[in-house]
Amino acid sequence: METVSENKCFGGVQGVYRHRSDLCKCDMTFGVFLPERARHAPVPVLWYLSGLTCTHENAMTKAGAQQWAAERGLALVFPDTSPRGEGVADDEAYNLGQGAGFYVNATQNPWAENYQMWGYLAEELPRLLVDTFQIDEERQAICGHSMGGHGALTLAMACPGRFASVSALAPIANPSQSDWAKKAIHAYLGEDGDYWARHDATLALRTAGFDGPILVDQGTDDPFIEALMPQSLATAMAETRHPGAFRLQKGYDHSYFFVSTFMEDHVAFHAEALCG
Amino acid sequence: METVSENKCFGGVQGVYRHRSDLCKCDMTFGVFLPERARHAPVPVLWYLSGLTCTHENAMTKAGAQQWAAERGLALVFPDTSPRGEGVADDEAYNLGQGAGFYVNATQNPWAENYQMWGYLAEELPRLLVDTFQIDEERQAICGHSMGGHGALTLAMACPGRFASVSALAPIANPSQSDWAKKAIHAYLGEDGDYWARHDATLALRTAGFDGPILVDQGTDDPFIEALMPQSLATAMAETRHPGAFRLQKGYDHSYFFVSTFMEDHVAFHAEALCG
Repeated sequence: METVSENKCFGGVQGVYRHRSDLCKCDMTFGVFLPERARHAPVPVLWYLSGLTCTHENAMTKAGAQQWAAERGLALVFPDTSPRGEGVADDEAYNLGQGAGFYVNATQNPWAENYQMWGYLAEELPRLLVDTFQIDEERQAICGHSMGGHGALTLAMACPGRFASVSALAPIANPSQSDWAKKAIHAYLGEDGDYWARHDATLALRTAGFDGPILVDQGTDDPFIEALMPQSLATAMAETRHPGAFRLQKGYDHSYFFVSTFMEDHVAFHAEALCG
Repeated sequence: METVSENKCFGGVQGVYRHRSDLCKCDMTFGVFLPERARHAPVPVLWYLSGLTCTHENAMTKAGAQQWAAERGLALVFPDTSPRGEGVADDEAYNLGQGAGFYVNATQNPWAENYQMWGYLAEELPRLLVDTFQIDEERQAICGHSMGGHGALTLAMACPGRFASVSALAPIANPSQSDWAKKAIHAYLGEDGDYWARHDATLALRTAGFDGPILVDQGTDDPFIEALMPQSLATAMAETRHPGAFRLQKGYDHSYFFVSTFMEDHVAFHAEALCG
């Protein structure tokens, strides 16, 4: 593993690292924020999964999460959103290929060779992090924005006992019912696969469920709201009586100005679940 | 004036606007954050001047200032760092030309035609802002990072009564004594000009002074520290018995991870001077 950069930040260290991924068969870059207290003992960790077109860097520089993580003593992990590199398949569309891994293990060509983001985030990267940094494997939580909200919710529901809490900002909430969201998932997994119960947060909540609280924020002026289908997830949360909150935030859109506005709430929500 | 974008952010609005500058003879872009209370009455304003290679956008997305400005009811202004465009002179060096206006009125060719950033920030842009937004002309403060710290300090000292307070993060503190910093200023103003008392913060403090508090933060691991010459400004502040603080922050570098870590302190410092 190679250190790309390390910067002191809110008393801790914001690092960027690169390693060879066995599953994605390419070099992968990720960010890790370690609060000051990680110098002495393992700390709880909050994963942040990003949205379409993002790399590891967007949330790391724009969400403002480090200040709250430092205050609460949490580590943060910022993975990339897809495999990358010259030999990695890509597409001109912004919502397919590099920057748009959709947090699945692709089974279709040309994607199957590298696009194994589900396994990368469920297995390979957690193992590397726990082996390398002062991170407490027993205290993990996960959040995400947009496509990353989809990833956070579906991973949390598919890994019982792994995450104490899950949250999402403007997640892709019900992709099996959204023509826009189906496009990439069909490309990666085929049109006839039996995978929606795992890769659709609304369906996963109704079937697998989740053993912890859920927080969802959605801006009312989000230009993607029709494709995101937040109402499906809100309905599922209400009908399953799931502990947590689904919040509609008046006037906010899909940008990092929206994300950063509510980041303090999300970090506090996870800190409560992780640290009591 | 054209609206480039407006995003709701911490209850207020982060806008980006473009206008034709008479002084710079090109289109100029700037960001303005207006807190919620600016919907009802004029609010105090904090100017943020950025460093080399930055546009209006860097601090707006990475410094995290909006949350504290929203809490305190301050507007924020994020000007660009130079004139820009196809017809505007430029240089391959990162510290000369577009992105590197150094907050002076250039007198030398080919820069004099457009590089009038001093007048733009001292006169043209404030007039436009006060005429357009709910900004209280009588309550202004200014801060900046690196080259923008140089700009903030020198503008504040040259405009008595304009700014209630001034602060800087890792400012270019004594350019007349720094070979690195002199290069661009010599290109813009000539090598023999009598301008250092205005465009060197250390000299300006010793001659013009400033009628308000000064806050300076400097990371001890800043790779540019030799060229920035913070010790000159610290000495001048101490010798002139100037109210304020010069702080050395252990382990921090020159990045926005440093800036964002101390942004809350800077906004609070200015809010105290502006609002009591």
